[in-house]
Amino acid sequence: MRLSQMLFATLREDPAEAEIPSHKLLVRAGYIRRIGSGIYAYLPLMWRVLQKVSRIVREEMNATGAEECLLTQLQPSELWKESGRWDTYTQAEGIMFALQDRQGRELGLGPTHEEVITLIARDMIRSYRQLPLNLYQIQTKFRDEIRPRFGLMRGREFIMKDAYSFDADEAGMKVSYQKMHDAYHRIMQRTGLAFRAVDADSGAIGGSGSQEFMVLAEAGEDEVLYTDDGKYAANVEKAISLPADAEPSPFKRYEKLDTPNTPTIETLAAFLKCSPTQILKNVLYQVTYDNGMNVLVIVSIRGDQEVNEVKLQNELVKLGSQYGGKAVIGLTVPDEVAQKEWAAKPLPLGYIAPDLSDDYIKSTKNLAAKFLRLVDKTAIDLKHFVTGSNESGYHVVGANWGKQFELPKVVLDVRKARPGDRAVHDSNQILQSARGIEIGHIFQLGTKYSTAMGATYTTEQGEEAPLVMGCYGIGVSRLAQAAVEQSYDKDGIIWPVAIAPFHAIVVIPNVTDTEQVQVAEQLYTDLNAAGVETLLDDRDERAGVKFKDADLIGIPYRIVTGRSLKQGKVEVVTRRDHASQEMAIDEVVSTLRRWVGNP
Amino acid sequence: MRLSQMLFATLREDPAEAEIPSHKLLVRAGYIRRIGSGIYAYLPLMWRVLQKVSRIVREEMNATGAEECLLTQLQPSELWKESGRWDTYTQAEGIMFALQDRQGRELGLGPTHEEVITLIARDMIRSYRQLPLNLYQIQTKFRDEIRPRFGLMRGREFIMKDAYSFDADEAGMKVSYQKMHDAYHRIMQRTGLAFRAVDADSGAIGGSGSQEFMVLAEAGEDEVLYTDDGKYAANVEKAISLPADAEPSPFKRYEKLDTPNTPTIETLAAFLKCSPTQILKNVLYQVTYDNGMNVLVIVSIRGDQEVNEVKLQNELVKLGSQYGGKAVIGLTVPDEVAQKEWAAKPLPLGYIAPDLSDDYIKSTKNLAAKFLRLVDKTAIDLKHFVTGSNESGYHVVGANWGKQFELPKVVLDVRKARPGDRAVHDSNQILQSARGIEIGHIFQLGTKYSTAMGATYTTEQGEEAPLVMGCYGIGVSRLAQAAVEQSYDKDGIIWPVAIAPFHAIVVIPNVTDTEQVQVAEQLYTDLNAAGVETLLDDRDERAGVKFKDADLIGIPYRIVTGRSLKQGKVEVVTRRDHASQEMAIDEVVSTLRRWVGNP
Repeated sequence: MRLSQMLFATLREDPAEAEIPSHKLLVRAGYIRRIGSGIYAYLPLMWRVLQKVSRIVREEMNATGAEECLLTQLQPSELWKESGRWDTYTQAEGIMFALQDRQGRELGLGPTHEEVITLIARDMIRSYRQLPLNLYQIQTKFRDEIRPRFGLMRGREFIMKDAYSFDADEAGMKVSYQKMHDAYHRIMQRTGLAFRAVDADSGAIGGSGSQEFMVLAEAGEDEVLYTDDGKYAANVEKAISLPADAEPSPFKRYEKLDTPNTPTIETLAAFLKCSPTQILKNVLYQVTYDNGMNVLVIVSIRGDQEVNEVKLQNELVKLGSQYGGKAVIGLTVPDEVAQKEWAAKPLPLGYIAPDLSDDYIKSTKNLAAKFLRLVDKTAIDLKHFVTGSNESGYHVVGANWGKQFELPKVVLDVRKARPGDRAVHDSNQILQSARGIEIGHIFQLGTKYSTAMGATYTTEQGEEAPLVMGCYGIGVSRLAQAAVEQSYDKDGIIWPVAIAPFHAIVVIPNVTDTEQVQVAEQLYTDLNAAGVETLLDDRDERAGVKFKDADLIGIPYRIVTGRSLKQGKVEVVTRRDHASQEMAIDEVVSTLRRWVGNP
Repeated sequence: MRLSQMLFATLREDPAEAEIPSHKLLVRAGYIRRIGSGIYAYLPLMWRVLQKVSRIVREEMNATGAEECLLTQLQPSELWKESGRWDTYTQAEGIMFALQDRQGRELGLGPTHEEVITLIARDMIRSYRQLPLNLYQIQTKFRDEIRPRFGLMRGREFIMKDAYSFDADEAGMKVSYQKMHDAYHRIMQRTGLAFRAVDADSGAIGGSGSQEFMVLAEAGEDEVLYTDDGKYAANVEKAISLPADAEPSPFKRYEKLDTPNTPTIETLAAFLKCSPTQILKNVLYQVTYDNGMNVLVIVSIRGDQEVNEVKLQNELVKLGSQYGGKAVIGLTVPDEVAQKEWAAKPLPLGYIAPDLSDDYIKSTKNLAAKFLRLVDKTAIDLKHFVTGSNESGYHVVGANWGKQFELPKVVLDVRKARPGDRAVHDSNQILQSARGIEIGHIFQLGTKYSTAMGATYTTEQGEEAPLVMGCYGIGVSRLAQAAVEQSYDKDGIIWPVAIAPFHAIVVIPNVTDTEQVQVAEQLYTDLNAAGVETLLDDRDERAGVKFKDADLIGIPYRIVTGRSLKQGKVEVVTRRDHASQEMAIDEVVSTLRRWVGNP
């Protein structure tokens, strides 16, 4: 394309709406335009990037035997009621846009497609002979984000590839899952981005196991913990590790001590001159289930550790059946308002014991159990520990499970793994931390949706069995922006060659110079003919403006028909390192072709 | 692909939801599945068809210099309020799905994108030097149809290509429009469908001129009038023609006659033994403007002619300014309920005169003018005509304008052109009728949206001027179904080669016969390698089932590795005419390659 004939306009100033570099750059360089909160139009340059990402995704998906289709964006509420997710998605979490049609029927705008694909599978898959199958689509999806931000990163309308596998059994599903895992690796490698696959939490999608693919970038919203041997990597939400050993307690005798102004572990350890590993911390939560039931939870954990609330929430979902709850819709440290509602007298916050007595609790009809007591694995072997006394300003020391306090019946791993922890697979490996942008997530779903919606097939033995499913997502538009977040400098974007909108840009410094124009036009034609996708900056602008624009939009190679024409040469500049070289005109096409991978 | 590894399931029975052949066939052959009313998933075979249509569209659009982008499906209400279409689209016509986000802000789901693209143009187009520009996208659109039906034909979620051109002036816009017109011709030709470009009404999109591209098919919802010389074709809504001459009236003397039971032109002409061309018909309408104003309209037209309500509505929009109305949201022949509301005494329906007296009308605050009198061109030269007397059971004969009745001030062409009428461009040409499915529509928009939304550019003279726009749509999913509607037989679909999901299918009659399997596998591999997209029916099914399925899904060429293998031959069957031939195995690839146009 010729810049003179394109919709091309760059901005000098950072847009007010943008917080992170990639968002600023994509707007300034004319790749995207905001239409509404979290809603962006993809302009022609961006569309080319998205098409390149999509092509890589499509090729790798097709190579696994997956079939492309296109499901519906409008999704009748009935389907989501069958799977049991309508209320959670439209009300409790509220991330699904819901609307009514002219007949008053409720519809959702698809944030994901488990329900629709399961409906189709129920209808069309009849026999084990049709299995395995994997169907995928590349499509715009919708999420009514609480706080849309970061451009395409957390938009309300975004492009995803989502795939759904169907197998006859768990073993087959694991094979399908592994195929997708491998395909995702190849996709990430081909885009040219630094990435890491990590163990992940399955969240609202459900299922038994999942991994995320993270593009590494400082502005990433996720924290990843990994070991240098490459054998372990996980989202911090999911990560496991070996905690440091507890130091032996100096408090051999049980007694209650006056410990004024020590509501935190830090202040308490300083006051008692002991190690935080000798303290038992008791953290209070209020959990609300989808049936409206509220449960108060005390989590006892070793003082040097933190509660991982994602792990805690997952455990609370499992424990929910005793309260008639299927999903947790709220998990909070009770604030003053909540406390007033259910505490009969002011809680001794900062001084709570593992057995906060029931007389603190008013009788409220929505309060299921007075307290649910949980203990993290780190705390069960503590001896002679320090902990709260249920009286403000006082702690007890030298306490032991089975003596002063009963060990809670429910023992769990709800501890937050941290950089510096030792790895579980090899205690010589220390967990390192990196920040990442989640661009892919693969799930072993199992039979969650097929059972709920009755999607069965006939086995070889003639029996009806539920289909065993997996699901696999890649954020196509998010990946494109993540590439910028990983790769830019003060002058603008630096696209990896594989997903750059164009490989090269030929710049005519002075459009009134016939020779410059002639050579540029010829190179422009020849490069494109050779498969090197090339822009021509033929605008009547100053050379400086053109160079700045070429840097800003991030085209990997810039060819300038400038002064060295006299020597039969042009200047070729590599965007990534600004390395410049004079190159004989007749070598440009073959060299560039080689540089961009012989397209 | 191998059928054994595809999501492949055909149905014997027609689905209950389907009314027309193409809809039945697409469901039965496993191309689409209904997810909700007017909402269909595109299964893998259909997706291939849609991709082929899209590729043709994309190539032809790119060849004109248009740039592809992707606009947003969520559209803030503010934008549509700027253009003045929010109320019409979400309320009056109600074809736009509207929703509220979690902050209570109103959004629409895009049925079209004039507002969004005009916003971008306002932001990015600054100078005449950036013009002309044409931006297009291929995207899923939404319409909350009153009565979704016919599968993809009148669905609520469908795929469209829409393009928007921007020019400095009217002349430039006409050049852009002509380019699109020519591109649409090439697109239609390449798809292999019989089509016709026709003059069309611009409807709610607006603008000064438009054409539709119709795929000809018996089940088409639109009627097209055309002449055999190829010089005229128009949607009946827009068509013009010369009416037959009126016969001279036999009633030279004005008098009122007792004409019992003659409320229709037919009964009256029979009773009076005169020609309908001698009768003046007066048709009553109630028109409702977008400001709530109701106006009663009498249209006087020659008795042998019908009122074209689309033309009438367009004229009423132009006349609306005197009532403060910008859009007509209702145009109905007043029913009994409406009559009770505003008629002081029963109307002499069937006997109405062109000057129905004002004393019929109650005073109602929303009634703007008592009557608006319009006369069609066919009626202004009538002499000694027959017409109503405003008294039930009586007509007058021998009437004349300017004597018994005042000629209405507003003279219009609101007559419905009909097959058999003479053409305007050549009175020897007679209008023919055909039924068509509208799959494309191109519009000369002018400055309607750029003026409303302030999208201006700086002219060469340094002045601000509104951008002059055109817009151009093709229904991609509709085109795919229209192809089936135009081309099927009792056995199933007959795809044109250019948009068939696969070019050929190799059928193994007996999968336990090693030679059959071997030859089929080799042909399958070789054909695909040669660019002939080929399916392999390797399912363990009876040969008869496989032949039926191949016919049903409509693959252009079927290759059967059957009995003639003994002679080194296979059977090759052409789907369109079921013509069968024995072909030497080593000639299959080169022959098929030629037949499908040397891909």
